[in-house]
Amino acid sequence: MTDETPGRHMSAEIAQQPEVFAAVTGSRPLIASVGGAIAERRPRFALLAARGSSDHAALYAKYLIEVLLELPAGLVSASTTTLYNAKPDLHDVLYISVSQSGGSPDLIEATAAARDRGALTVAVTNNPDSELARAAELSVDVNAGVEKAVAATKTYTATLLALYLLIDSVQGGQGEKAAALPELAAQALSTIDSSVEEAVARYRFVERMVTTGRGYSSATAAEGALKLAETSYLAARAYSGADLLHGPVAAIDSDTGVVAVTSTGKGGEAMRDVVDTVRQRGADVLAVGSAAADVPASSRIVLPETAEEVAPILEVLPLQRLALGLSLARGGDPDSPRGLSKVTKTR
Amino acid sequence: MTDETPGRHMSAEIAQQPEVFAAVTGSRPLIASVGGAIAERRPRFALLAARGSSDHAALYAKYLIEVLLELPAGLVSASTTTLYNAKPDLHDVLYISVSQSGGSPDLIEATAAARDRGALTVAVTNNPDSELARAAELSVDVNAGVEKAVAATKTYTATLLALYLLIDSVQGGQGEKAAALPELAAQALSTIDSSVEEAVARYRFVERMVTTGRGYSSATAAEGALKLAETSYLAARAYSGADLLHGPVAAIDSDTGVVAVTSTGKGGEAMRDVVDTVRQRGADVLAVGSAAADVPASSRIVLPETAEEVAPILEVLPLQRLALGLSLARGGDPDSPRGLSKVTKTR
Repeated sequence: MTDETPGRHMSAEIAQQPEVFAAVTGSRPLIASVGGAIAERRPRFALLAARGSSDHAALYAKYLIEVLLELPAGLVSASTTTLYNAKPDLHDVLYISVSQSGGSPDLIEATAAARDRGALTVAVTNNPDSELARAAELSVDVNAGVEKAVAATKTYTATLLALYLLIDSVQGGQGEKAAALPELAAQALSTIDSSVEEAVARYRFVERMVTTGRGYSSATAAEGALKLAETSYLAARAYSGADLLHGPVAAIDSDTGVVAVTSTGKGGEAMRDVVDTVRQRGADVLAVGSAAADVPASSRIVLPETAEEVAPILEVLPLQRLALGLSLARGGDPDSPRGLSKVTKTR
Repeated sequence: MTDETPGRHMSAEIAQQPEVFAAVTGSRPLIASVGGAIAERRPRFALLAARGSSDHAALYAKYLIEVLLELPAGLVSASTTTLYNAKPDLHDVLYISVSQSGGSPDLIEATAAARDRGALTVAVTNNPDSELARAAELSVDVNAGVEKAVAATKTYTATLLALYLLIDSVQGGQGEKAAALPELAAQALSTIDSSVEEAVARYRFVERMVTTGRGYSSATAAEGALKLAETSYLAARAYSGADLLHGPVAAIDSDTGVVAVTSTGKGGEAMRDVVDTVRQRGADVLAVGSAAADVPASSRIVLPETAEEVAPILEVLPLQRLALGLSLARGGDPDSPRGLSKVTKTR
C-alpha cells in the first residue's frame, strides 16, 4: 500500500500534466468559440481578477493580451469592489476572472459587479458548474480534472494553456504554438529527474530563496516562489528581474538560493544581466528554462525549446518537482501543508 | 563630527517628512491644475507604470483611481513595450508614470510610446527637469527635495501625497483629507520612538518577516517589506491579507515576524481575520496603524487617525524607522546598502 505516501497526490498530478495538456488542446474549438465571441465585441481594455496561483496565470495572460492583442491590460483588486464598493464604468472592458475552484466569494462578487457595469465577463475555471462560471457571461473550462493536492499544479498549467488558446483565438490564431506541448511536457518530465534531484540536495538546508524572471516568465517566477513557500515553508519570494535590481538585490548573498527562469526569447535574454549581478554577489543560481545553458548559473535544469509565449507552461514543471522534492526531503507532506485548505473564502 | 554616522541620511530624511508634506500640500494649486487638465480629457481607463518603491506608490494610486474616480485602473509592465514592442491603442487612457528620479530608461521609453499611441501621459517625479517629465504630456513635481539615502523614504511618502492630491483634484476635491498630514506626521514621529525601539529589539535576530495589509494599506505592506529587505537584508515579503490566506500562510510559524497594517477603515477591518489566523499559527504579530489597538497583536505601534484614503502616508513612517533601526542594530549602514545605486537602469 502506497496510499498514505506523503506527496502522492501532488506527485501524481504533476505527472498527469502531459495528458491534461492533450485534453486542453483537444478542447480548443470550444475555447475558440469563446474567443470568437470576445473578438466580436471588440473590447478596448482588459482587466484580470484572480488570487493565489490563479493570479500568476492572470499575470501571464496580461502579457499575452498586451503583446498579442495589443490591448492595454491590468490586474485588478477584487477588494475595490468587495471592500470599497467602487462602481467604475466598464463598457468596452474585457473582464477575465481566473479561479481553479470558481468558488472564491470575492471573485464571484467582483465578477457579477463588473458584468452589471457593462464589462464582457469571462470566467476561466476548472469547475464549469461553479458559481463563478454562472456569474460571468462567458466561461472557459480549464479541463484539468479533479485536483486533490492542496498545492495547485495541473490546474495552474492547464489554466495557462487555456488562457493562451483563448487569447490566441481572439486574434484568429489556431493555437499552433501550443500543439506540441503535450509531447514536450512528457519529454521534460522524463528528462529532468536527475537535475531536479541535484537541486533538491543543493537546497535541502536553504532558508531563503528568490525566484526571478522577466516578461512572460515573470509568472513562472511568481508561481515557483509560491509553490516553494506553501509546500516547503521556505522564505521564498519572486521578483521580476528588473525590480530585483531596484533594491531587493541588497538582500541577496551567499546564503540565498536564486532560481532564474531563462527561456529562449526576449525575456530570457534580458535575464543575463540579472544572473550576472546576483552571481557577483555570491548567490547560488539555478537556471531553469530552454536557454538555461546560456547563462552563467551554478546549476541548470534545461527544458525543451518552445515559442516564448508558451514557455511558462513548461517552465513551471521542474519548479513543481523541486517544491515537492524539497518538501519531502525536509520531512513535510506537500499534500497537506499546515493551515491550508483548497478553497479560500476571503472577501 | 557625526558626519560619518551610519544611517545619517536615512534618519534625517525620515525626520524631514512633516516639512516635506507641508511643501507638497503647499503646491496643491499646481497639482490641481494638472488634475483639472486630466478631468477635461475625461479618461475612461487608467494605467500606471513604475518600479521599486514607486511601484508601491502606483499601487496606492490604483486604489484611489478605482475608488474615488470610479475608473478601471491597472498596473502595467514597461517591459511589454521595451522587450516586446507591444503597440496597444491607448486613446481614452490616462497613463501615469511614477519615478522619483525620472531617469529609468524603461519608463521613459514606455511613457513616450504610450503618448505616441494616444494616451494622456502624466509623469509623477521628484525631478521636474528629468527626461521622464519631458517625455510625458503633463507632469507633477513631487517636491521632496534631494534624497541622499539609497533607500527611498521622503520621496515615497511625498509621491503618495502628490498622487492623492492629484487624483482628488480630478474629481474636484480640495485635498481636505490631507490638510492635517504635516502635523499628524510630526506627531507620529515624536510618539513612536519607544514602540519602534521595542520592535527593533524584538526583531534583532529575526530572519524572516512578512508584511500584510488590505485595500489602500496593501501599498504600505509592500513598501515596508522592500525597506526591510533592502536595508536589513531580511527575507521580508509582503502579501495582501487576502492572498496570504491563499497559500503563503503555510510558511508562517513561530519563527516569522508578521507586520500587520491595520488602520481605521474597511481595509483595516478586513485584517482582523488575517491577524487571528497568523496568531493561531504562533507568529509574532506587530500591528501598525491607527486601528492597531483593535487587533489581537503581540505588540503595537499606534498612529494618529486619518481618513482611510490618506492613511498609507503615515503608516509607512514607523516601518521606515523600523528598517533603519534594524539595519543599525544588525551592524549595517542603510545609507549604503550592498550593491545598490540610486537610479537603476533596467530596460
